[in-house]
Amino acid sequence: MEKFKAEREELNRLVMRYAGREVKRFFNVDADVYRDGALPAKVKELLGLVSSLVLRCDDCVTYHLTRCREEGVTDPELEEALAVGLVVGGSVTMPHFRRAFRAWEELKSDDGT
Amino acid sequence: MEKFKAEREELNRLVMRYAGREVKRFFNVDADVYRDGALPAKVKELLGLVSSLVLRCDDCVTYHLTRCREEGVTDPELEEALAVGLVVGGSVTMPHFRRAFRAWEELKSDDGT
Amino acid sequence: MEKFKAEREELNRLVMRYAGREVKRFFNVDADVYRDGALPAKVKELLGLVSSLVLRCDDCVTYHLTRCREEGVTDPELEEALAVGLVVGGSVTMPHFRRAFRAWEELKSDDGT
Amino acid sequence: MEKFKAEREELNRLVMRYAGREVKRFFNVDADVYRDGALPAKVKELLGLVSSLVLRCDDCVTYHLTRCREEGVTDPELEEALAVGLVVGGSVTMPHFRRAFRAWEELKSDDGT
Amino acid sequence: MEKFKAEREELNRLVMRYAGREVKRFFNVDADVYRDGALPAKVKELLGLVSSLVLRCDDCVTYHLTRCREEGVTDPELEEALAVGLVVGGSVTMPHFRRAFRAWEELKSDDGT
Amino acid sequence: MEKFKAEREELNRLVMRYAGREVKRFFNVDADVYRDGALPAKVKELLGLVSSLVLRCDDCVTYHLTRCREEGVTDPELEEALAVGLVVGGSVTMPHFRRAFRAWEELKSDDGT
Repeated sequence: MEKFKAEREELNRLVMRYAGREVKRFFNVDADVYRDGALPAKVKELLGLVSSLVLRCDDCVTYHLTRCREEGVTDPELEEALAVGLVVGGSVTMPHFRRAFRAWEELKSDDGT
Repeated sequence: MEKFKAEREELNRLVMRYAGREVKRFFNVDADVYRDGALPAKVKELLGLVSSLVLRCDDCVTYHLTRCREEGVTDPELEEALAVGLVVGGSVTMPHFRRAFRAWEELKSDDGT
Repeated sequence: MEKFKAEREELNRLVMRYAGREVKRFFNVDADVYRDGALPAKVKELLGLVSSLVLRCDDCVTYHLTRCREEGVTDPELEEALAVGLVVGGSVTMPHFRRAFRAWEELKSDDGT
Repeated sequence: MEKFKAEREELNRLVMRYAGREVKRFFNVDADVYRDGALPAKVKELLGLVSSLVLRCDDCVTYHLTRCREEGVTDPELEEALAVGLVVGGSVTMPHFRRAFRAWEELKSDDGT
Repeated sequence: MEKFKAEREELNRLVMRYAGREVKRFFNVDADVYRDGALPAKVKELLGLVSSLVLRCDDCVTYHLTRCREEGVTDPELEEALAVGLVVGGSVTMPHFRRAFRAWEELKSDDGT
Repeated sequence: MEKFKAEREELNRLVMRYAGREVKRFFNVDADVYRDGALPAKVKELLGLVSSLVLRCDDCVTYHLTRCREEGVTDPELEEALAVGLVVGGSVTMPHFRRAFRAWEELKSDDGT
């Protein structure tokens, strides 16, 4: 998980060396769309997580899992959200579904919980 | 909207005339995964809605919009959920994003709200 | 179904007016890959059908259904093949899954069977 | 084509009645990313067109075709760009590939060319 | 291949520690949909394989290759099935197509055939 | 990068040991569709690159980056092309977008530029 975060930050720095105005604005919108509003950040992170699962993006799933953890998502809430993604996206999401639980275990282990 | 629901029900009846055991079980799981649990049905319907948007399925979006309306989702909640889908799924989701608001308007008009 | 076939042929004629060498070769490969070989054409059409379902392409599904009918696919064989696609592709394939059975009914009705 | 443009504009007006800050910023980025820069707008519209084809979005394809026409894309340039999309995206893109040429014909007919 | 199977089983055990009723039912449906019926298991595994290729899921492809091997799929049958997937899914499936043959070679090597 | 090219060539040799007529023709079409024509090879490689990004295929992105480099694509041209892909494909393409710049840096480093 530490390695995941470090690599992500290093690549973001590289992207920003190349990024023009549109890319920078896109990155800002991507950060802001998950902020508290009419819906709490926790629900928005679950939306990002399940969208990432059905689109089968491991890195996106891992990122949203770290944010879900910070927002206090519980084990049963996580399981129910991922279950929606599994049913919507079908068995082709199963490898990502399995790895999501492994990443969640690692996050809990890093927390000492 | 009435036409959408009627067609959906008619096709479900047709499917059930052909459906074997696995298909029937899949349809049951698909219904049950959105029920109240650790997460309320309202949040699960938003998860189904945004998953449907990023996967660009108009019929799925319309179906979850009818359920979101039944669960009391407000205009700002809807807009924020769809905004997450737009950013995750990109501009290729825009035609579906636009049609989602048209369907929502129709649902409100049918409600007399 | 007649309308579907007529429109498809008219558009193919239009495409061929524009098509360069690569497009023509692609169309030929696409026709030849479904011919009898180590696997019979019937199995290959089922492969084309289920691939089209999981990729959620109604026109492709309809086309392969007409070919499956010509190859003598039975109702239970069709249902089992589509069931694999439903489970692999998830509930987002359900609108296409439903419409596949409607198209199949129309093909049977056109046959007088 | 006129109908397509009129509906698109009407829906954009509806979206803007609901849109929060992030959605508005996304729509702006989406407009600006195709402007002349190190790459000319013509090439960027071809990039948008082929991306839309491989993602199988008819509305997106039609929109970029109208812009390609405005940027002076010729018939052979169009055919070669769509051919790349056909090969990258496979035969599942064929229905969209066919409809792209039909829309192009309509655009030429509207032009009187 | 041994490592692939061991990791898959370990992750399945982890998933089952979290899994609620819907997830368990989904996993059961996913296992049962490939059983002998009107279509033999061999054909269903080929359907699963080609669906996995067009959806570009390496783990799913590898899993169905192990099952195809158990069901007695021959080299020419495998090549023809994957060729359908390559043409349907386009050149974007080529990295997965290549890796499918490498995994098949490893399965044959493990068999001593 | 050297490792990437060597593995790709080795797997192509393996595929050709299995490949029937349709697979060989597909590989040829895939090579020829990027050749100079009404559109220059450079533009076609950018089309291949952005299609690969929106379809989220790292290997395809890396391959087209090597070809873009050979065709003389500059840093700002690359950034603008990838920006179109990012906006079309959404934040789910961001991990691939980041890795594309890392691969580009490696190509420049291998060049000594």
